[in-house]
Amino acid sequence: MSRPTRHVFVCTQNRPPQHPRGSCAGSKGSTALLQAFWAEQQKRQTYEQVAVTYSGCLGPCDRGPNVLVYPEGVLYSGVTPDDVAEIFTSHLENGAPLERLIAAEEVW
Amino acid sequence: MSRPTRHVFVCTQNRPPQHPRGSCAGSKGSTALLQAFWAEQQKRQTYEQVAVTYSGCLGPCDRGPNVLVYPEGVLYSGVTPDDVAEIFTSHLENGAPLERLIAAEEVW
Repeated sequence: MSRPTRHVFVCTQNRPPQHPRGSCAGSKGSTALLQAFWAEQQKRQTYEQVAVTYSGCLGPCDRGPNVLVYPEGVLYSGVTPDDVAEIFTSHLENGAPLERLIAAEEVW
Repeated sequence: MSRPTRHVFVCTQNRPPQHPRGSCAGSKGSTALLQAFWAEQQKRQTYEQVAVTYSGCLGPCDRGPNVLVYPEGVLYSGVTPDDVAEIFTSHLENGAPLERLIAAEEVW
């Protein structure tokens, strides 16, 4: 891929169901979220401006699924597939982070 | 983790040995590279300033292992465990990207 304007990392860390920390891809369903980001990217054909990559643990597992956007370093928590279009329009395409999903200061 | 000054993503994408694209964790050995980054982080105790996370494919598989550092968006290719200390000292701690490992412009 070419160097993107914004790079989205979707946590797909997995842990067993009984693990006390939970995990974004285990108990929080981030695999569907990753697919939603990739589908939205395909729909909008934003391959030159936006990159979507899965990643390991981003920290606040109990508040996941977590999504991190660089270069701003904005961490989103509790993201669902229903939020993806809004994140694309507001942040990824227009540079305005989506305030309502930004992770709390104490975790990032 | 708290919000880091610099965030290192080490590609650990895996594909079967016979796959034509190869892969950072398959034919290129990036699992050992990731361990080297984590070990160096532990040695230097830079947990507040630096985050090290594994990621999915970053693009130029044939030149891997690939390592991406944000917020600068610097992509390194062909990184080995022997390069890790230098990347920490030069880029992660002092903000000077390591020119000799920066990926070619045509791939990033």
